Amino acid sequence: MSVCNELVPKFESSDWTQTSRGCPHREGPFPGTGGPAEEAKQALINTDEILKAAGCDFTNVVKTTVLLAAMNDFSAVKIYKQLFKSSFPTTAAHQVVALPKGGHVETHAGAVQGSLTTASL
Amino acid sequence: MSVCNELVPKFESSDWTQTSRGCPHREGPFPGTGGPAEEAKQALINTDEILKAAGCDFTNVVKTTVLLAAMNDFSAVKIYKQLFKSSFPTTAAHQVVALPKGGHVETHAGAVQGSLTTASL
Amino acid sequence: MSVCNELVPKFESSDWTQTSRGCPHREGPFPGTGGPAEEAKQALINTDEILKAAGCDFTNVVKTTVLLAAMNDFSAVKIYKQLFKSSFPTTAAHQVVALPKGGHVETHAGAVQGSLTTASL
Repeated sequence: MSVCNELVPKFESSDWTQTSRGCPHREGPFPGTGGPAEEAKQALINTDEILKAAGCDFTNVVKTTVLLAAMNDFSAVKIYKQLFKSSFPTTAAHQVVALPKGGHVETHAGAVQGSLTTASL
Repeated sequence: MSVCNELVPKFESSDWTQTSRGCPHREGPFPGTGGPAEEAKQALINTDEILKAAGCDFTNVVKTTVLLAAMNDFSAVKIYKQLFKSSFPTTAAHQVVALPKGGHVETHAGAVQGSLTTASL
Repeated sequence: MSVCNELVPKFESSDWTQTSRGCPHREGPFPGTGGPAEEAKQALINTDEILKAAGCDFTNVVKTTVLLAAMNDFSAVKIYKQLFKSSFPTTAAHQVVALPKGGHVETHAGAVQGSLTTASL
């Protein structure tokens, strides 16, 4: 199975893991053809794989960013939030002018390996 | 007092702290109603609280991002820079198409806990 | 030689290094005058200097972001990819509405000091 380079995470033990944006394909739809919901789903599948490869899961994620080609597509990507059950990352979303290759959705995630503490406010 | 989830930072001891964007309310104005300067002020109040909750302050911040719905509002958010006295984080600002809920300003900050060194160029 | 503050990285030993966007000048072109290719080149020179000052090089970079004022300029900044030989960072690029001071290109990079492992997928 070919894996595009954007999917490969670098990390240091007990440290930062950076996942890619929802990479165009990996047995999945190419941006611009699948629509926002499909792209979001594929982006999350990719993110999940990267996290696992780095010994992490969604509980290790401290930040997510969702870039949208149209703000109205935000509802289509709400699947995103379902993956975070109790320990929520910082989340930011905004509309950009354009994403590469006509994509509708791009997601970024950063994770910290090891046990995390959520500060109380 | 209710605190929206976006305000809750995750962190690991001696490691990365990710603060949220200027969260809509927390006894503060909702984006779209207060104007850029008010939103920026509230975003900084929120950021300050998150940093403190994680045992940090503005000297621990290594990166800030300011997203604007209109580049002309940049002058309205210059309050932002006043918080950094001597040890400046990497700062980036740019104009996006739209922020959620009609917001004018969104700020992100990332901090590293512990003692920091500023490299000499 | 004067160095603008945006070029100064903060870092912690064995930890996160955040490089600035391509800072306007430093013996280099000011955004808006040099064109996308020149700006990208200068941004990379700046990034290289910051990485070195923090005891890193391009192999330590785990994430890059390229912001463009026009998506068509992406080809002009492909020089960017030449610096990463084998161990690729997560890369994201998108078009924003405007960059400060009429800039065409802005690059961000985040690096982790020390030895990195690239996870296998």
